Amino acid sequence: MSISIETFFLDPSAVGTLQARIQQMVAQGILAGRFRPGERLPSSRMMAQHLGVSRITVTLAYTELVADDYLTARGRSGYYVSDNAPEPPAFAMQQTQTGTVDWTRAIGQRFTPALSIEKPTDWANYRYPFIYGQADRTLFDTANWRLCALRALGMRDFGALTADYYDGDDPELVDFISRQTLPRRGILANPDEILITMGAQNALWLSAQVLLNSRRRAAIEDPCYPAMRNILMQSRCQLSIVPVDQDGLPPDALSDDIDVLFSTPSHQCPTAATMPLDRRKALIAKGEAQDFIIVEDDYEFEMSFLKPPSPSLKSLDPHGRVIYVGSFSKSLFPGLRLGYLVGPAPFIKEARALRATVLRHPPGHIQRTVSYYLSLGHYDALIRRMSRAYHDRRQVLDAALQDSGLVVAGQGQSGGSSVWVRTPDGTDTTPLAQSLRAKGVLVEPGARFFAGDAPPTEYMRLAYSSIPASRITEGVRLIAAALTKNAA
Amino acid sequence: MSISIETFFLDPSAVGTLQARIQQMVAQGILAGRFRPGERLPSSRMMAQHLGVSRITVTLAYTELVADDYLTARGRSGYYVSDNAPEPPAFAMQQTQTGTVDWTRAIGQRFTPALSIEKPTDWANYRYPFIYGQADRTLFDTANWRLCALRALGMRDFGALTADYYDGDDPELVDFISRQTLPRRGILANPDEILITMGAQNALWLSAQVLLNSRRRAAIEDPCYPAMRNILMQSRCQLSIVPVDQDGLPPDALSDDIDVLFSTPSHQCPTAATMPLDRRKALIAKGEAQDFIIVEDDYEFEMSFLKPPSPSLKSLDPHGRVIYVGSFSKSLFPGLRLGYLVGPAPFIKEARALRATVLRHPPGHIQRTVSYYLSLGHYDALIRRMSRAYHDRRQVLDAALQDSGLVVAGQGQSGGSSVWVRTPDGTDTTPLAQSLRAKGVLVEPGARFFAGDAPPTEYMRLAYSSIPASRITEGVRLIAAALTKNAA
Repeated sequence: MSISIETFFLDPSAVGTLQARIQQMVAQGILAGRFRPGERLPSSRMMAQHLGVSRITVTLAYTELVADDYLTARGRSGYYVSDNAPEPPAFAMQQTQTGTVDWTRAIGQRFTPALSIEKPTDWANYRYPFIYGQADRTLFDTANWRLCALRALGMRDFGALTADYYDGDDPELVDFISRQTLPRRGILANPDEILITMGAQNALWLSAQVLLNSRRRAAIEDPCYPAMRNILMQSRCQLSIVPVDQDGLPPDALSDDIDVLFSTPSHQCPTAATMPLDRRKALIAKGEAQDFIIVEDDYEFEMSFLKPPSPSLKSLDPHGRVIYVGSFSKSLFPGLRLGYLVGPAPFIKEARALRATVLRHPPGHIQRTVSYYLSLGHYDALIRRMSRAYHDRRQVLDAALQDSGLVVAGQGQSGGSSVWVRTPDGTDTTPLAQSLRAKGVLVEPGARFFAGDAPPTEYMRLAYSSIPASRITEGVRLIAAALTKNAA
Repeated sequence: MSISIETFFLDPSAVGTLQARIQQMVAQGILAGRFRPGERLPSSRMMAQHLGVSRITVTLAYTELVADDYLTARGRSGYYVSDNAPEPPAFAMQQTQTGTVDWTRAIGQRFTPALSIEKPTDWANYRYPFIYGQADRTLFDTANWRLCALRALGMRDFGALTADYYDGDDPELVDFISRQTLPRRGILANPDEILITMGAQNALWLSAQVLLNSRRRAAIEDPCYPAMRNILMQSRCQLSIVPVDQDGLPPDALSDDIDVLFSTPSHQCPTAATMPLDRRKALIAKGEAQDFIIVEDDYEFEMSFLKPPSPSLKSLDPHGRVIYVGSFSKSLFPGLRLGYLVGPAPFIKEARALRATVLRHPPGHIQRTVSYYLSLGHYDALIRRMSRAYHDRRQVLDAALQDSGLVVAGQGQSGGSSVWVRTPDGTDTTPLAQSLRAKGVLVEPGARFFAGDAPPTEYMRLAYSSIPASRITEGVRLIAAALTKNAA
């Protein structure tokens, strides 16, 4: 690679001869790790012209740098960073700007900690990855995805790829979701009742901003998706924490002063519990009686391989008080960052205005690619393939867990991609997960899903979305063995 | 296309015979425009199995629908929505949920109006599009972009494509920006001082959230990028509006109580003015003396075809009080939604935590595609091609404006992609733009860039980023003619 000429400029306030300053500029780039061995420098002629100095000045500087082994000259082809050039320090570059600002004071609002990241990004290198929410390359249909992405890169779609949609969405994607995706969940919605979002996370965040303020009260499930709790804590609303049971959120446990409820009825996160139909109806009736809004995160409804999914809350709601959140993160892949929000037009209008201020719109190419992938039928085929694989894995996992003596504390009635496991009293799954990791087993400790300072420590989530069926039994055996050793 | 079987489900609470309910379900789908002529229905066998009813019930329902011309039967190949099926109403589907919620009350925070969209999305169909900020398909290097996108879709990059990065970014893109892009602006930054954002809009929004609160005061330029003003108004901070002159923001005009200044020194938006070096230094000295933070939106610095760009504020800042915002929206295309934020680690840490809560991270595929496009040198080649074209267009525009009698009120010293034009006193460019549009000329009225209820009406922005050089002279002539007619 050539080093771009624009990288070089002479600081007008610097001291020293021109030659020395050029030498310094190059040497500092190498020492800072910006220019790497083998990379080619601009020719002395171009550099001289660019800096507005004489060519001989540059040549002298380069010659000095060759003598110091920062550079090598290769005949007529020019100057390159030497393979023996001094190496940049292995530690980070020195703080370039110590500065005069007191950042503790300059920061007007704090948002840390946000997501606590306990999942290794190199999970694919582990033999027993009971990891949740990452794409499985053995199942994903890369070939058709590539074809759709390529089609969306064509000149016919140049507008959809490049355009600034301002506050709008790809009309083709919205049309498909309206006509084909939502009806499967019993939902009829016009385009002005749909907003494309940067994944379910963004949809939930937008909902919280629009519906809540510091005088309003939100209810969330406990345990729950930690990023959801973060959203509400950052929104500075009042918060009611509602413990779930094996059927998800119990409507009777809701206090009468809540304004908005956030719920995951398809697969409660993280217990995977599916809310039964009568409870869904009771929840909607309670919403109507107490006049609160329900935000339904319907993630993973597609993963219904044991029996058909329960009707969505929104499809059961005659009062128009359910806001619906859908996502492609679990069914396609999380790096896509695409989801959608469905609700009445006045609500969507506010969410759209906020999204426009925060980020304008999700990238056009991604929206159009998904639109093709859906409308050409690849999505349905993928879901079927994933469902078959998950079905097999779930059977193996259920059997292995039964043999292991581990207690299944929650599982999806219709499917899902994980089970919620309870280990013996007194176990702390956080250090347990650490020691299992050394054996190639990745499990997710449950504590981070709970609210409060003293969360239960004996739960963990075991996902089967990324582990082959053939490794599940041995993986569970290793977990059980670690628990036995723990108890001994 | 086949209609997916999951679209169909029997509502347990519905009334009527099974056959009638099936007929109704299909007919409603057609009437609502969800099933369209020529689309194929699931076979009677599959439908019967899916709904848990007898096959004869489905067959009878289909036969009735054929008799009513909703469907046609094509021999052995099945049932299709008839070409003569009743058409859905041309107006939108009926509001499905009139509902019991008072949304005026249920909405806890309002964000409308956000961006006011005055630019037609079909701008490419106009003959004289002096439109700002959209990609020019005659200049963009689609072939290499496709190659990079395709490479980023390969199995080697499966992780980068699909992974949930949680609060992280693509390390390859961050590395390139740190080593190659920022040094060209005289900026050295470690990876923990860089955050990838959803365009400059998102970078500015994150900065405002982290740096401001209701007790702090922000200063912005007047006129300014309207979305920037929206960001600050939504943040509920206190606001100082500072009029710019032909050299951009005058440091002397800043009051002594501001906490954060948002500025566009490379090309002031919308006047295109370039801030001279001495003013840049004075601004930084003032920031140090009064202890305020400067957020520098360095958009379009790449478009420096008349002379090299002025040094960025951040490169001149020894105090570490400049936050830098970069964007690929103007140099690549706005639908990409990719930019970056550079600042001290404690600031970036908070911005990263907020971004994680709002949307997690920009999509992996887009980050990796840009990373390839940059590192393979295509980006530099594109900038050179764009610069040559813009250079030519600018010369033609300058000459045409001189002949037209229009007053150039602002233009970039080093380049840019637009000029700021003042029409005669008393002109209102908003209706002028409307009438020009009918003649195929798109110009951008200036009023929306100004703060306050009574903005000046005689300005407009003429961009040359999307109009061929060959049409500029005639376009300017049409504008001048409309003004003459206006005055008459």
